[in-house]
Amino acid sequence: MTDTADSATPFPPAPDNKSALEEGDRLTPRFDANGLVTAVVTDAADGTVLMLAHMNAEALSMTLSTGIAHYYSRSRASLWKKGESSGNLQTVEEIRIDCDQDAIWLKVSVSGHGATCHTGRKSCFYRRIDTMTGDAYLVADADDAPRFDPKDVY
Amino acid sequence: MTDTADSATPFPPAPDNKSALEEGDRLTPRFDANGLVTAVVTDAADGTVLMLAHMNAEALSMTLSTGIAHYYSRSRASLWKKGESSGNLQTVEEIRIDCDQDAIWLKVSVSGHGATCHTGRKSCFYRRIDTMTGDAYLVADADDAPRFDPKDVY
Repeated sequence: MTDTADSATPFPPAPDNKSALEEGDRLTPRFDANGLVTAVVTDAADGTVLMLAHMNAEALSMTLSTGIAHYYSRSRASLWKKGESSGNLQTVEEIRIDCDQDAIWLKVSVSGHGATCHTGRKSCFYRRIDTMTGDAYLVADADDAPRFDPKDVY
Repeated sequence: MTDTADSATPFPPAPDNKSALEEGDRLTPRFDANGLVTAVVTDAADGTVLMLAHMNAEALSMTLSTGIAHYYSRSRASLWKKGESSGNLQTVEEIRIDCDQDAIWLKVSVSGHGATCHTGRKSCFYRRIDTMTGDAYLVADADDAPRFDPKDVY
């Protein structure tokens, strides 16, 4: 489906031993059948969830070595240095991995407009699901107005 | 692979129009080929990322109608009412969807031990990736010690 599974990985294979995987100090990411782990990205200053994305081994390795967040774009099937077009680069303040090592949490500081979403907003999660009336509908967060006009940037 | 794609969904299909999808007020989740969206779960009080999980249409619908977080367990191939065994139920304080409607953010309050991870810890993301020495290794967060003994609970 993608070429990610063929990529050489600088990470050792995950141990069979569950305790070693969950309690150990070795970074052994468990990439899925497409060679990807899921990454959740939060604002290091206020904790807002900014986006979800995917990383292959190359993207994780680049992120660790440069301190700037890199992802794997499934739509473009290539390494994606987030913010390269818009200037909204993400500097990694802290990076964590979950219990079974198939998900990553990045706490980042965003430069440029301070926006992560391609719509120009700070966060991709700018709409709340409201179920007060019985039917679910979406309510835009008035505090997360676009910070740039996508037409001017992309 | 799973039976999720066959499940009837109570949600309308996503519009072809990108602006309607991204700027509209209709909840039209874009489930993947396996019938799933990714959910990121944070502590409503302090913003800690607690876990990543998946939802099928049934899990999202149950979450919206009951206010208690439900997921889809890929390993068990079934609906998963989080905390049913451990007592660590998640009450949803707010729920959001991202720009292209394929990811969900839940802000929750956790009952019971206040733990989300099956290891007994508050968060599944209890290990920081440290690259200070050049080699990446994992450092456990001393502030996130286990709150229960999994052997006593599962």
